[in-house]
Amino acid sequence: MKKIGVADTTFSRVDMASAAVDELNATGSGFKVVRRTVPGIKDLPVACKKLIDEEGCGIVMALGMPGPKPVDKTCAHEASMGLIQVQLLTNTHIIEVFVHMDEVSSEKELAHLAERRTREHAVNAYNMLFRPQKLRRQAGTGQRQGFKDEGRIE
Amino acid sequence: MKKIGVADTTFSRVDMASAAVDELNATGSGFKVVRRTVPGIKDLPVACKKLIDEEGCGIVMALGMPGPKPVDKTCAHEASMGLIQVQLLTNTHIIEVFVHMDEVSSEKELAHLAERRTREHAVNAYNMLFRPQKLRRQAGTGQRQGFKDEGRIE
Amino acid sequence: MKKIGVADTTFSRVDMASAAVDELNATGSGFKVVRRTVPGIKDLPVACKKLIDEEGCGIVMALGMPGPKPVDKTCAHEASMGLIQVQLLTNTHIIEVFVHMDEVSSEKELAHLAERRTREHAVNAYNMLFRPQKLRRQAGTGQRQGFKDEGRIE
Amino acid sequence: MKKIGVADTTFSRVDMASAAVDELNATGSGFKVVRRTVPGIKDLPVACKKLIDEEGCGIVMALGMPGPKPVDKTCAHEASMGLIQVQLLTNTHIIEVFVHMDEVSSEKELAHLAERRTREHAVNAYNMLFRPQKLRRQAGTGQRQGFKDEGRIE
Amino acid sequence: MKKIGVADTTFSRVDMASAAVDELNATGSGFKVVRRTVPGIKDLPVACKKLIDEEGCGIVMALGMPGPKPVDKTCAHEASMGLIQVQLLTNTHIIEVFVHMDEVSSEKELAHLAERRTREHAVNAYNMLFRPQKLRRQAGTGQRQGFKDEGRIE
Repeated sequence: MKKIGVADTTFSRVDMASAAVDELNATGSGFKVVRRTVPGIKDLPVACKKLIDEEGCGIVMALGMPGPKPVDKTCAHEASMGLIQVQLLTNTHIIEVFVHMDEVSSEKELAHLAERRTREHAVNAYNMLFRPQKLRRQAGTGQRQGFKDEGRIE
Repeated sequence: MKKIGVADTTFSRVDMASAAVDELNATGSGFKVVRRTVPGIKDLPVACKKLIDEEGCGIVMALGMPGPKPVDKTCAHEASMGLIQVQLLTNTHIIEVFVHMDEVSSEKELAHLAERRTREHAVNAYNMLFRPQKLRRQAGTGQRQGFKDEGRIE
Repeated sequence: MKKIGVADTTFSRVDMASAAVDELNATGSGFKVVRRTVPGIKDLPVACKKLIDEEGCGIVMALGMPGPKPVDKTCAHEASMGLIQVQLLTNTHIIEVFVHMDEVSSEKELAHLAERRTREHAVNAYNMLFRPQKLRRQAGTGQRQGFKDEGRIE
Repeated sequence: MKKIGVADTTFSRVDMASAAVDELNATGSGFKVVRRTVPGIKDLPVACKKLIDEEGCGIVMALGMPGPKPVDKTCAHEASMGLIQVQLLTNTHIIEVFVHMDEVSSEKELAHLAERRTREHAVNAYNMLFRPQKLRRQAGTGQRQGFKDEGRIE
Repeated sequence: MKKIGVADTTFSRVDMASAAVDELNATGSGFKVVRRTVPGIKDLPVACKKLIDEEGCGIVMALGMPGPKPVDKTCAHEASMGLIQVQLLTNTHIIEVFVHMDEVSSEKELAHLAERRTREHAVNAYNMLFRPQKLRRQAGTGQRQGFKDEGRIE
């Protein structure tokens, strides 16, 4: 049975992993979820690598909520660079789901955005592992996870 | 038969992959196109690596449309760094075709730019694989894909 | 017996390593601490790698205090990138504990923040090595090391 | 016979490669030049790596002309990072000769700067391969390729 | 006998390598110095790697003087990233001694700073190789190479 890794943080103010697991289970079956929780987003790259190398995950969702300060933006950049490196070292996709605290202006909107983006990317993760042709049909259609899609320009 | 990889995203608002495939076929023959679609540009590096490692592509076009916000610019930078790493790990060229949404000021111009840049780089990809001397003859001539060439300064 | 590495710098104005070792010992047992001191934070990545490769540490705490100038911020970024690379090369977690000199406005607050953040991350390091389920229970709860936790948004 | 690689771009508005080859031949002998032309500076890293891995070049000159816009500056940074990575993967020097379009204010000055910097670095490349003691004697003397040397501060 | 590498540039306006060698010899014995000079700081990473891989150096000092312009700051960042990579690839420390031209306001101060920082880091390099406990005793004491130490905050 295939494995889907879900890595999240104690820094995030929203329980993104539960949304991910719930949506994955609502989307399909034939997989097992393996979870890991780390302190912050910079701890995610090696956590994802271990989910791939040691647990045999076929794809991983990396869930994080970068803060609004410049140092937080730098952390997010470093984490993203690390997540790309992991993918290249393992030839395995990692779906980065980062929700920046300053994307919206209230706690309520932040929780909503985090859940919605996580759920939409859970579907992407499932599709990439089990039915990549679904993504192919959405090529160039301006998909936006967590916000309204922008659509294709004809 | 040689293979040319074409990787694109669901984030892009223009179907750049179709333009790429159309132009490749108009330019020459003797190759097979292998396509992959991923959610966003940060998913392109490992998609391109898999096209090279697992599908045997001799060159890959990485097509993306970064958004206009600072976080989008950072994403584009991260994706570009990853694409360069893939090339060094595989000794294989990847032609990055990124069209930034703020390069032009209307949707119509954006679609035009995306198609034109993609087509011009499709010719580059074909030439790099089959007739590198064509690029040699353009050395130092100020080529600009999607815009008017700037030309050589004598 | 498991080993926990603790790497610190002569640049830091606070003896963070002593706080780390003290807190580790107060948190649990069954481990041995191995320490290394280097001049600055950019020397930490290879020091941590050697603690893992040559000393067999199962986790490492990287303790540093970046200065307030732009060049110091760049140093911190470079060090962080290196620390992530070490983790990917060794499949081992490194807990980065960086306290920026401009996070607070007095020397007294800086010493307090450095000690408190180091101690809270020492608990994280211990938990990651011996009882990862403790982190799992804190997933998405807005933990902030050295400052008041922000808490979960329901 | 030793080989010197020369990689350049179709983006550059000056034929830097011809200047490089001309100056190399004027400086000494005992080597063969191998040329490659790619579209832009981000294509240079893998082109240089292939010149080293596949052609056996003992040193490579990477010639490029980054544009004046922020996105061009980012491209130059990415290319430079890639060129450093290639050197570390191959234990081979690559002399990066980048001429930024906004270093001078007219096309005439740009052509002059590009040619002069290329020629001065061609001498560096030759010296690094055949007579490294020449560089040793210039240590700490404020050399500036393409502009007036700043000289040593006593 | 152990070897200490010293890599410097022709770009620097101060002969930092001579200061390094002089101070190393004044600090202790039991080592041989191996020198390499390259054009600029971006050439230092591979020069240091070759000093380690090909010459067997147990530690290397990388001496450079980045210019004051934004492009120079980017070069310094790229060089630093490369130097960290070399350390991780070789499990060997490299002491980066960079003196930015805009740290002080006169040529006289620049020469003084460059010499003093180089000499203080030469002692660090010697200590790291022969008596690491000396650094251990300075942990968290606010050392500043080239300027007055800031000291420990109690």
